[in-house]
Amino acid sequence: MSASVSSTSAPYSELPAANVKLFEAKARKGATFDEIAKAVGKDEIWVAAAFYGQAKFAPEDLQKVSEFLGLEQASLDAELGAHWWPNRGLGPMPPTDPVLYRLYEAVLVYGHAIKAVVHEKFGDGIMSMIDCTVTVAKKEHPKGDRVVLTFDGKFLPYAKW
Amino acid sequence: MSASVSSTSAPYSELPAANVKLFEAKARKGATFDEIAKAVGKDEIWVAAAFYGQAKFAPEDLQKVSEFLGLEQASLDAELGAHWWPNRGLGPMPPTDPVLYRLYEAVLVYGHAIKAVVHEKFGDGIMSMIDCTVTVAKKEHPKGDRVVLTFDGKFLPYAKW
Amino acid sequence: MSASVSSTSAPYSELPAANVKLFEAKARKGATFDEIAKAVGKDEIWVAAAFYGQAKFAPEDLQKVSEFLGLEQASLDAELGAHWWPNRGLGPMPPTDPVLYRLYEAVLVYGHAIKAVVHEKFGDGIMSMIDCTVTVAKKEHPKGDRVVLTFDGKFLPYAKW
Amino acid sequence: MSASVSSTSAPYSELPAANVKLFEAKARKGATFDEIAKAVGKDEIWVAAAFYGQAKFAPEDLQKVSEFLGLEQASLDAELGAHWWPNRGLGPMPPTDPVLYRLYEAVLVYGHAIKAVVHEKFGDGIMSMIDCTVTVAKKEHPKGDRVVLTFDGKFLPYAKW
Amino acid sequence: MSASVSSTSAPYSELPAANVKLFEAKARKGATFDEIAKAVGKDEIWVAAAFYGQAKFAPEDLQKVSEFLGLEQASLDAELGAHWWPNRGLGPMPPTDPVLYRLYEAVLVYGHAIKAVVHEKFGDGIMSMIDCTVTVAKKEHPKGDRVVLTFDGKFLPYAKW
Amino acid sequence: MSASVSSTSAPYSELPAANVKLFEAKARKGATFDEIAKAVGKDEIWVAAAFYGQAKFAPEDLQKVSEFLGLEQASLDAELGAHWWPNRGLGPMPPTDPVLYRLYEAVLVYGHAIKAVVHEKFGDGIMSMIDCTVTVAKKEHPKGDRVVLTFDGKFLPYAKW
Amino acid sequence: MSASVSSTSAPYSELPAANVKLFEAKARKGATFDEIAKAVGKDEIWVAAAFYGQAKFAPEDLQKVSEFLGLEQASLDAELGAHWWPNRGLGPMPPTDPVLYRLYEAVLVYGHAIKAVVHEKFGDGIMSMIDCTVTVAKKEHPKGDRVVLTFDGKFLPYAKW
Amino acid sequence: MSASVSSTSAPYSELPAANVKLFEAKARKGATFDEIAKAVGKDEIWVAAAFYGQAKFAPEDLQKVSEFLGLEQASLDAELGAHWWPNRGLGPMPPTDPVLYRLYEAVLVYGHAIKAVVHEKFGDGIMSMIDCTVTVAKKEHPKGDRVVLTFDGKFLPYAKW
Amino acid sequence: MSASVSSTSAPYSELPAANVKLFEAKARKGATFDEIAKAVGKDEIWVAAAFYGQAKFAPEDLQKVSEFLGLEQASLDAELGAHWWPNRGLGPMPPTDPVLYRLYEAVLVYGHAIKAVVHEKFGDGIMSMIDCTVTVAKKEHPKGDRVVLTFDGKFLPYAKW
Amino acid sequence: MSASVSSTSAPYSELPAANVKLFEAKARKGATFDEIAKAVGKDEIWVAAAFYGQAKFAPEDLQKVSEFLGLEQASLDAELGAHWWPNRGLGPMPPTDPVLYRLYEAVLVYGHAIKAVVHEKFGDGIMSMIDCTVTVAKKEHPKGDRVVLTFDGKFLPYAKW
Repeated sequence: MSASVSSTSAPYSELPAANVKLFEAKARKGATFDEIAKAVGKDEIWVAAAFYGQAKFAPEDLQKVSEFLGLEQASLDAELGAHWWPNRGLGPMPPTDPVLYRLYEAVLVYGHAIKAVVHEKFGDGIMSMIDCTVTVAKKEHPKGDRVVLTFDGKFLPYAKW
Repeated sequence: MSASVSSTSAPYSELPAANVKLFEAKARKGATFDEIAKAVGKDEIWVAAAFYGQAKFAPEDLQKVSEFLGLEQASLDAELGAHWWPNRGLGPMPPTDPVLYRLYEAVLVYGHAIKAVVHEKFGDGIMSMIDCTVTVAKKEHPKGDRVVLTFDGKFLPYAKW
Repeated sequence: MSASVSSTSAPYSELPAANVKLFEAKARKGATFDEIAKAVGKDEIWVAAAFYGQAKFAPEDLQKVSEFLGLEQASLDAELGAHWWPNRGLGPMPPTDPVLYRLYEAVLVYGHAIKAVVHEKFGDGIMSMIDCTVTVAKKEHPKGDRVVLTFDGKFLPYAKW
Repeated sequence: MSASVSSTSAPYSELPAANVKLFEAKARKGATFDEIAKAVGKDEIWVAAAFYGQAKFAPEDLQKVSEFLGLEQASLDAELGAHWWPNRGLGPMPPTDPVLYRLYEAVLVYGHAIKAVVHEKFGDGIMSMIDCTVTVAKKEHPKGDRVVLTFDGKFLPYAKW
Repeated sequence: MSASVSSTSAPYSELPAANVKLFEAKARKGATFDEIAKAVGKDEIWVAAAFYGQAKFAPEDLQKVSEFLGLEQASLDAELGAHWWPNRGLGPMPPTDPVLYRLYEAVLVYGHAIKAVVHEKFGDGIMSMIDCTVTVAKKEHPKGDRVVLTFDGKFLPYAKW
Repeated sequence: MSASVSSTSAPYSELPAANVKLFEAKARKGATFDEIAKAVGKDEIWVAAAFYGQAKFAPEDLQKVSEFLGLEQASLDAELGAHWWPNRGLGPMPPTDPVLYRLYEAVLVYGHAIKAVVHEKFGDGIMSMIDCTVTVAKKEHPKGDRVVLTFDGKFLPYAKW
Repeated sequence: MSASVSSTSAPYSELPAANVKLFEAKARKGATFDEIAKAVGKDEIWVAAAFYGQAKFAPEDLQKVSEFLGLEQASLDAELGAHWWPNRGLGPMPPTDPVLYRLYEAVLVYGHAIKAVVHEKFGDGIMSMIDCTVTVAKKEHPKGDRVVLTFDGKFLPYAKW
Repeated sequence: MSASVSSTSAPYSELPAANVKLFEAKARKGATFDEIAKAVGKDEIWVAAAFYGQAKFAPEDLQKVSEFLGLEQASLDAELGAHWWPNRGLGPMPPTDPVLYRLYEAVLVYGHAIKAVVHEKFGDGIMSMIDCTVTVAKKEHPKGDRVVLTFDGKFLPYAKW
Repeated sequence: MSASVSSTSAPYSELPAANVKLFEAKARKGATFDEIAKAVGKDEIWVAAAFYGQAKFAPEDLQKVSEFLGLEQASLDAELGAHWWPNRGLGPMPPTDPVLYRLYEAVLVYGHAIKAVVHEKFGDGIMSMIDCTVTVAKKEHPKGDRVVLTFDGKFLPYAKW
Repeated sequence: MSASVSSTSAPYSELPAANVKLFEAKARKGATFDEIAKAVGKDEIWVAAAFYGQAKFAPEDLQKVSEFLGLEQASLDAELGAHWWPNRGLGPMPPTDPVLYRLYEAVLVYGHAIKAVVHEKFGDGIMSMIDCTVTVAKKEHPKGDRVVLTFDGKFLPYAKW
């Protein structure tokens, strides 16, 4: 029996062949990102980002992934190894999928408030999205479970010269 | 001596007169959002959002804000009270300010990873941006302080009918 | 004490002066659209649409509205009477306000399904948005009240010639 | 004789292979969404949405659909089952097809009126498009039949924190 | 009693002061474009286009218009006379007003068919929109009156060199 | 000898296979839309629109078209018959082809004039583009032949409720 | 040895197969547009436009082109002959290629000046881009050769009716 | 009697006050760009570009312009002199005015042909729009006068390093 | 004699009043950014960015600027001091001014090459535009002086977690 | 073992086949742009630009590249030789990849400052992006290495005529 990755929208069709292979192997094994992340020793969001071509696996990551998913490492190395660099950004904006749109809406509605408080707490600068970790946790709640999404990014003050 | 709110970009020019008055009173008093938030009994991000016209003050909030900032409550009530409802969303997208853009970039780069993990952890549905709290904390760090931005939103499963 | 209409976003700034006067009188009186609608003998959605300049009051509507809100009818007639026609459409799309966006999302997510079922039930044609009534009802529910939004539009078959 | 799904516009070309198979089987059998919906025990709009990849079939839904349309369930499970999640949103906006455009026009023309009445009836919050059912009914009328399109969505009040 | 021109949308706000004066005088007199057109000796569509700043009145047209509407000719001459040239095009596209949108939809739906038939009947070239007259007639019909909109434009064959 | 349909621009590439077959058979036979229209008993613009997937052939239309063009009816029925509905709208806007652009320019330049005259002649409502016929005639003229393009659409008054 | 046409950008991928064949034959022969133009008895810009599918070869042009380039005329006739009409416009705007962008910049920077002078010299009307010839000449100059690009288009006065 | 500059479209509203003064003085004097150009010793297109803020007058140009139009030089110097630099580009694109659009259409239709011939005649590089002169001439013709628009720009070869 | 800042394009109209005052004082004094920069002890590009509201003056910078330009410091402090934070980004994109466009073109043409070389030299990460200095130098050259524009930004490696 | 070029984003899919071959050969050999550049006698940025189809190899460059990478020169000549000219510009804007976006942000934030200083140092004109060299250097730094990106472009003064 073959398992394949389907989607009504563009993201998968923009992925390189190697990433599609990763998704297919994940589906075949029935593994979650959390299980793969534990095998690699990373967080599930980072691993999911790497599956979507938004982060770069180190050679040792590729080895653990290929082992866990039963893929040939040499082939992954050839496609996602030393000579490949992510071209980040996936799919059109504003996003149409409601999960993605709600994140976008967070920027629309709370962006200026976040910016104002960052300036008041840290001064003139930004929260880095490069030196930043992203996690998703499930918080159980009697009125309905909650998603706790956390960005932990370094503050970078503006250069003056 | 008068204090005024200036900005090179559009947000302030889109604000109603009542909100501009709030910002001017805040500047005059030299108060931070955190100080105002403590006076109101709310979080600073929520208060900043309300200053930017992205949330609605309850009558008792307006009373505390006007008291703290030395503004006439009746006038705020007339403009931001029972007959006013926020039209949320502020400024053009993609945002050009680097603080706002980094949040937007988070959606571009990590959006699909977050969506995938939400689905794996919760099933088919979304993280609400309506029943959601947003906080910004400062985490000190020897290599540079970090911004910890947290969204805590209810998971809403899709209706089937 | 003066009451005014404020908003963080564009709609009000695009309204002609006569409509702004209507909103101000409504706020001053503290009246809901439902109360005005009952005075005019129309549905609240239609009346709200007319306040936003999206529908045209008949002379007798203008008379009842001006009476109910204590406005001079002659002035409303001069501005919204025989020589005025609505230029429909208000504010940028996609809308940024979450209430409006959810309606837009309905088109994104359920549009093709609605189109397919309209074709199966009625044939090749459209649901008119001109000969169409729109209503909003509140349905109480133990797990949270529900909004029931109904469009009742004439089916128009395509001409063939 | 083979039956196929054709269209002048993009939606079908964005659908995953499994959904195209569903449409082809539907056309081969000459079944309407209403007939399929009765076999699945769901409403026709929800079933049409799922055919367009905008909703997720539960395993038991997939079983009933594959049985009714004479498709192999294992293959549908592999493609639309546990490891697949809808990426909602289909086709460009503003839509060019007149059926879809009239829905879009409803947002343009009546959006602000609906928003105002929702606020007056429920307070600051939104009508959920996640916990929402959508139905289309045919209402016969001597001057031309009418389409009755109803959205029944939970009201969600804004969090304050 | 003053009469003024109001509109919920942008066109009037883009008009030069002289054109706004024309609209105000027209409203004050309660005249239709047809009546003005008869006074000028032109078609009502052309006159309406000139009112919207989309065509240029000749000096004798300005004389007749100012006479008919009771405006001072010298002032119109100064603003719309020899030194003024129309910058044609008015308001954003796609248009949001349903009357304008239906014309736009005509291009979307029938554009390629019209192009194909023009080529078959005339060869490689275009129908001029410069040497073109536009008329609107009312055709009474028992099932509802009809609008007959006619464009009569010169065919221009492509140069070859 | 094979004949094929070529084009520098997108429209043909968006057409379903069945429509491409229609165009190829038309080119092979060297028939004009006028000749096909006479065989079908319809106007050439309607037939051209149907070839471009912008209108739906009735079963008897498909029979006459397939007979006239020497195509197998069963195959056309399967692709363009009962289970197919047009997704109208073809190609990007603003159109780049000069024939199409001139139609678009008609909306830009004369749209507001047409709207104003429709309102003055008919009241608040629109000219239907659904119950509308479109014709193109050739009018000979000593200074160059002219294209006469006519839209004859039902006036639809706005509902009030 | 095969010669092929390559390009980093979209234009070629939008060309119909027949035009790609023309470019390949041109590359194989190593001929310039000027040489082909001389063989056809036309200007090189017109010929290049026709290669890019922006103009229509007459039957005798196709005969001379096919002879000069060693292509089979029947095949060109079938694809670019009587049943084919150019869909003009090629590639996205604003153009990204610097040669094309500089032409676009000419419209941005000098467009209003050209328009003003055309009006002063000719009155209310346009310079036709249909009855217009376009030529490119090389003018040698000690400080660097110059490109002389000339548009010679008929002035078309606006109709009044 | 006062003379003023009017326009239905945006360009004038984007001009700085000094440029509006130039246009008003030009209208008051009833001078053409050609007459002003002769007084300044420049071409009329360059002078018109400078009036539209698309070029920079030298001090001696400003002196001649102010003398010819009867304006105070000191004031022009203060606003358009040493401390002012043009921000080139005027009005939205694609342009809606037909005169401007035809120039834009020239890029759409003939852009690739011009690029190809420039490369064949000059190699890899561009035609400068900075070191470029632009002229408009009137060519009389029995079938209708013609506009001859010429760009004479330096060829700039690409650097290689 | 008053000196004012004029521009044909939007940037100045988006600047807060305090920044316009800075530009006017600079023009009145006839000072270059280089001279102001020397007085402040910063680079001219940084000072120009701060004038355009793209950087934040420290209190001591404001003191030196106000002293050098003869402005009252208290007023600058009130508007650009502790309670003001830049909203960076100025004017629409793509930019229409040729100086700005050439920088934009650098991203279009050389962006991928720069990215590839940064990855090869530094690994997966970015060149910071926050911890980055920007300088412009004039390099004399017999064939024409050259602009040397240098960005010196910290390399930031991507976080992995 | 085969090596291939993969990417999550569009650039590679827009490249002509010859350029993909270059990237594959580079990956197979494990060569950096710097090594290839040394073999060709050019800078690595220029070579990378040429690999991305943004610059044109001279015949001798193609010979050295094919030799170094072990590719057949005849085939490269046929595809990238005399008859090929770059269509510059690659991928959509604004760019989504963070490396590219930071360059774009440089234009947004520092563009007007750079323009102002160029004018003050050189007068009215531009920095050429055609006669311009681009280099990337690594500068080691104890707090983190820095990227030094330099554009060295000829200043071009505006023509006046």
